Amino acid sequence: MSGMWGNKIKLSIFGESHGKAIGIVIDGIKAGTEIDLEYIRKQMKRRAPGFSKLSTPRKEQDEFEILSGYFNGRATGTPLCAVIQNSNTHSKDYEKTASLLRPGHADFTGKIKYRGFNDYRGGGHFSGRLTAPIVFAGALCRKILEEKGIFIGSHIKSIGTIEDSKCFKFTSIEKSSLEKLSESKFPVLDENCGEKMQQYILKLKEEGDSLGGIVETGVINLPPGIGDPFFESVESTISGLLFSIPAVKGVEFGEGFDISKMKGSEANDEYFISDNNVIKTYTNNNGGILGGITDGMPLIFRTCIKPTPSISKAQKTVDIEKRKDALLEIKGRHDPCIVPRAVPVIEAAAALSLLNLMED
Amino acid sequence: MSGMWGNKIKLSIFGESHGKAIGIVIDGIKAGTEIDLEYIRKQMKRRAPGFSKLSTPRKEQDEFEILSGYFNGRATGTPLCAVIQNSNTHSKDYEKTASLLRPGHADFTGKIKYRGFNDYRGGGHFSGRLTAPIVFAGALCRKILEEKGIFIGSHIKSIGTIEDSKCFKFTSIEKSSLEKLSESKFPVLDENCGEKMQQYILKLKEEGDSLGGIVETGVINLPPGIGDPFFESVESTISGLLFSIPAVKGVEFGEGFDISKMKGSEANDEYFISDNNVIKTYTNNNGGILGGITDGMPLIFRTCIKPTPSISKAQKTVDIEKRKDALLEIKGRHDPCIVPRAVPVIEAAAALSLLNLMED
Amino acid sequence: MSGMWGNKIKLSIFGESHGKAIGIVIDGIKAGTEIDLEYIRKQMKRRAPGFSKLSTPRKEQDEFEILSGYFNGRATGTPLCAVIQNSNTHSKDYEKTASLLRPGHADFTGKIKYRGFNDYRGGGHFSGRLTAPIVFAGALCRKILEEKGIFIGSHIKSIGTIEDSKCFKFTSIEKSSLEKLSESKFPVLDENCGEKMQQYILKLKEEGDSLGGIVETGVINLPPGIGDPFFESVESTISGLLFSIPAVKGVEFGEGFDISKMKGSEANDEYFISDNNVIKTYTNNNGGILGGITDGMPLIFRTCIKPTPSISKAQKTVDIEKRKDALLEIKGRHDPCIVPRAVPVIEAAAALSLLNLMED
Amino acid sequence: MSGMWGNKIKLSIFGESHGKAIGIVIDGIKAGTEIDLEYIRKQMKRRAPGFSKLSTPRKEQDEFEILSGYFNGRATGTPLCAVIQNSNTHSKDYEKTASLLRPGHADFTGKIKYRGFNDYRGGGHFSGRLTAPIVFAGALCRKILEEKGIFIGSHIKSIGTIEDSKCFKFTSIEKSSLEKLSESKFPVLDENCGEKMQQYILKLKEEGDSLGGIVETGVINLPPGIGDPFFESVESTISGLLFSIPAVKGVEFGEGFDISKMKGSEANDEYFISDNNVIKTYTNNNGGILGGITDGMPLIFRTCIKPTPSISKAQKTVDIEKRKDALLEIKGRHDPCIVPRAVPVIEAAAALSLLNLMED
Repeated sequence: MSGMWGNKIKLSIFGESHGKAIGIVIDGIKAGTEIDLEYIRKQMKRRAPGFSKLSTPRKEQDEFEILSGYFNGRATGTPLCAVIQNSNTHSKDYEKTASLLRPGHADFTGKIKYRGFNDYRGGGHFSGRLTAPIVFAGALCRKILEEKGIFIGSHIKSIGTIEDSKCFKFTSIEKSSLEKLSESKFPVLDENCGEKMQQYILKLKEEGDSLGGIVETGVINLPPGIGDPFFESVESTISGLLFSIPAVKGVEFGEGFDISKMKGSEANDEYFISDNNVIKTYTNNNGGILGGITDGMPLIFRTCIKPTPSISKAQKTVDIEKRKDALLEIKGRHDPCIVPRAVPVIEAAAALSLLNLMED
Repeated sequence: MSGMWGNKIKLSIFGESHGKAIGIVIDGIKAGTEIDLEYIRKQMKRRAPGFSKLSTPRKEQDEFEILSGYFNGRATGTPLCAVIQNSNTHSKDYEKTASLLRPGHADFTGKIKYRGFNDYRGGGHFSGRLTAPIVFAGALCRKILEEKGIFIGSHIKSIGTIEDSKCFKFTSIEKSSLEKLSESKFPVLDENCGEKMQQYILKLKEEGDSLGGIVETGVINLPPGIGDPFFESVESTISGLLFSIPAVKGVEFGEGFDISKMKGSEANDEYFISDNNVIKTYTNNNGGILGGITDGMPLIFRTCIKPTPSISKAQKTVDIEKRKDALLEIKGRHDPCIVPRAVPVIEAAAALSLLNLMED
Repeated sequence: MSGMWGNKIKLSIFGESHGKAIGIVIDGIKAGTEIDLEYIRKQMKRRAPGFSKLSTPRKEQDEFEILSGYFNGRATGTPLCAVIQNSNTHSKDYEKTASLLRPGHADFTGKIKYRGFNDYRGGGHFSGRLTAPIVFAGALCRKILEEKGIFIGSHIKSIGTIEDSKCFKFTSIEKSSLEKLSESKFPVLDENCGEKMQQYILKLKEEGDSLGGIVETGVINLPPGIGDPFFESVESTISGLLFSIPAVKGVEFGEGFDISKMKGSEANDEYFISDNNVIKTYTNNNGGILGGITDGMPLIFRTCIKPTPSISKAQKTVDIEKRKDALLEIKGRHDPCIVPRAVPVIEAAAALSLLNLMED
Repeated sequence: MSGMWGNKIKLSIFGESHGKAIGIVIDGIKAGTEIDLEYIRKQMKRRAPGFSKLSTPRKEQDEFEILSGYFNGRATGTPLCAVIQNSNTHSKDYEKTASLLRPGHADFTGKIKYRGFNDYRGGGHFSGRLTAPIVFAGALCRKILEEKGIFIGSHIKSIGTIEDSKCFKFTSIEKSSLEKLSESKFPVLDENCGEKMQQYILKLKEEGDSLGGIVETGVINLPPGIGDPFFESVESTISGLLFSIPAVKGVEFGEGFDISKMKGSEANDEYFISDNNVIKTYTNNNGGILGGITDGMPLIFRTCIKPTPSISKAQKTVDIEKRKDALLEIKGRHDPCIVPRAVPVIEAAAALSLLNLMED
């Protein structure tokens, strides 16, 4: 516990990878909010598997059905439940190796936590599939933010050791650039680097290995004053939700870990009054957040995604039933690199966090 | 909002840097828990200012008074309130420059958030002083964990560009080494590096500048099975609380951001059965957490602290009253580097988070 | 907001009377808990409409489908979602009178609250149908309590002005008597009174009118020490959930409102040591709760249910579109008295509340 | 747990009757809210003991000190902590009878709950004294409501068997009448009945006995649309907080339990359009709440207070140390009837609940 999250907007997620369905209940969407199904489908399509050589062949349309809270094209203001059926499941793949702990997965910790009673098939509740409902909820919030002029976008900063040569300009990001990234199946600022990254992923795929990466996200046009000091700081809220996404191992804001290498005189973002009489900073090392509260500069954060633990290479492991060492060769179907599909999930987490922190 | 945090153990913090007092209410401490006042004082002493050339000359004993929930040396099981008086305040230092926004501080965001009604003196509620009550609560929890055999310790991994040459051995950390670090005023694994770091801090202090750094924390003897998938993952809970600490800009677990440079076959922690029939991993790149749940290996995380924003060097800023650009020279009394004093706060956050996630 | 409730066990309900489906997500059920589907069906059958002349002819099997959190007959420990399809809906009944506010219903308050965007058909989200998922969740908890030897039962204390001549013996209730009541379609202690009540309901039904009543509930074998002072008192928790049930207008514990007529010397429950060295009270005017905490005596409370607002008699109302007075004659299908169907809902609320307050 | 309550406004209470101090932290008061200390003192004076022959001679000024969240006469928007020192304690009164369970008190349940570690002196944390901080917080909220034109008032409907002959007119209550009641030390609608009640209390006091009563509360000018269906209904929220007040055993809204005696055609509040084009109801049997949401009519509820359990008459009890039956004669200082002092606490609970449910 808990599969429930939030204050102003509350989420309740449920489901297992090979169960009947996965889904989410969202409470707190204002009555009358237009629900743009096309927009939601577009966001979910960005995450859905099976549509690229870079992702698992498990093809899931991720077609959702809204069971409640939706009437005449709008949110009723009462809890909205959306369900996604699990169609394309190969449970057999898992049963034969059920007692072999997959390294890097939650097989072991899940067995301990749930005392052996959890649904192990395809990772069960731990599956990345559970991020689909989060993208659904995030799309609802993202649309609401866009109507306030707030836009979110990300580029893949690195895949393994290959970096995107370009970087967001922390002090100002173009809306058009964020939109372009959101349209891309493999969002990068430097297409050549993007090409190299994809080639590298395919190469590792052939080797039966996998890769991770870093995603850099920017949010523009946030008003200053969002968030709170201490327990509901913008960083606390966003990081708490980002670390709920399977495979995330690090989160940093602004210059993040590199800010520790600067002197105070370099790190401090000095103020000036811009032409239109808005208070801005010359630099944005703090990533748009001071004292846990937005300062009106672009919100910048980076999320680290570990390599997909599912690889077909043989791995040393333990047979937890027989209680002895063993060798594991995973068949199944897997993503050689989850990073591109993680991008919309990260953005959904940002949208959910920010809407939760905004005063109406 | 909110100054309240937690599930099994709930915190409610309050106070401003130059107000009458700061404090905390802690609810959920089991009735009968021995309250070791000396142990708590020791932890708070680690954070208290004014006891080293490296910290601000503002000397605060941080003597706490327990107002409730404490009877005959034990927790009563009802809410425990502890208050710390603000003794040594120089409010004058702030009034003359009240309308000048200090770069890197929350002056601007606080003014916007609270519409100009917040207590600005010494940063008011945003002051690092508010971490004293968190250390108080953390000490309570830390003692409870120690009685379960669970120990927490940290070393300063870097100050500015100077690194500790040694690193925690992720797969096994000695209890004695954690204890030694907890006793040290400036905890490092390589004393020579520690010397260099401290010299560097004093040098920057003379220049009227400041430094940040990275703290690496380890927790040993955690049983497997603590934490939950998704919204209450160990990473979500700890990072949420760490990012509540002023000046924290990045958090990573295990290999953190570097895990993104590995291949899956390198990143996965393979399993084996140890002599005493315990399931362990050969490596610990995941920092003791899989699927948001502890796996019994040492819990490892790093926290990035930005350079103290208060520097005496002149800085460009804005006079928010006069609505014009201005130059700021901060007098006051400040830490040239907050990292050593941040260590006990980070450890307190870990203790609070873990106790909150543990099943009784 | 909010459709989410609970601490140790969390609920998230959703749905509208004439939407696709209604349902619930339950988080916090211990992994490995046997899910007795027959037991749950039996509880839900007690609430289901259409199976008695006393209830609405709208026949709903209330067949639930478990989408998640359930594996090999047991709870997995992850969120359990159950969905109930809406089969037998006559939405037409409502559309023609959509703008006429039904007295005693939430038509007016719902329209204001949700600014006209809520699903009005059949009361939408306000429908008593939403209590079906609560009974589902309550049945799960009730079974867990029964395995601890704790039993819940209720008798209809009154319907309109007709009273059950018998009353629970506050100081000791037989398990067999609670079980007998749970088996009964119309639970009373004095069958003759039960007959009179049912005749009265049918008489009012013919008149196109309706009735309410009072339900008295007892819970036995609760250990002392459950609950907390103040905000999580047993009374606070149970009443909070009972008042979430549509049509409940009063809740009292033990002697309830009548205790205000006693003197302290009469009201105080004096203590004695029973044969088996258990501390008991001679009387139980406090209904098994002192200081918000159970004292080991039977827990006793009464819930007042108002008459079903849906009556076919003509009523004065307002046409909210035309903004003018109007006359309303409700057709549709309604319960002349909801009390018998409310009993299992009340018991579910008690089970949920108590399990939430119990230390593991 | 828990001593913490609320969503939009959060409370954290602490303290024991004979400890150093009691107090509260309030989070969520809007920055800039004027804090009218005189108004708060006036409300607290209404609850304070020792100022009437009807109450305990324990004289407590209940002088509060605000430690934080308050600056230049206004709320800063950060957590506001107020502390009340315990001055006039006679702990000796309790020590000699510490092992004798006082009937009607929480001595037994507290000992079990807290395994003997709680502070038993004067009831410790269970003491009615803990309602002083709730009145403090309620006064803050009540003032905010008054500025919105919303007024709260109560009359003592009965003391023991003596009733106030007059009753609130449910469909319209004069603001002046509520204000008059708030000024009165013993608020009733019929002064003669009030006289009789007070004489009765003094008579019982001489007999060493005590009395309870029923308080009827009205809130006027609430806009329609406050509250939610199900878990955050107005009734759920108010009753949850009312049942947190020691000695409360029953809560009902509108006609409450009596509504169960009416037919639907009598109970339903029919609608009409008033002169000023506002939608009103001819009657107000539902007490201003439909579907858990306010309908704009006066909010009406009644709270039942049990007789003060502390009486000087000899009572049968148990010596929990010696594990044997015993006789108890309480000396100490007690209220023969707590009802008049409970009135401001009940009103504070209503103010806190309503402000929590109001959309900004």
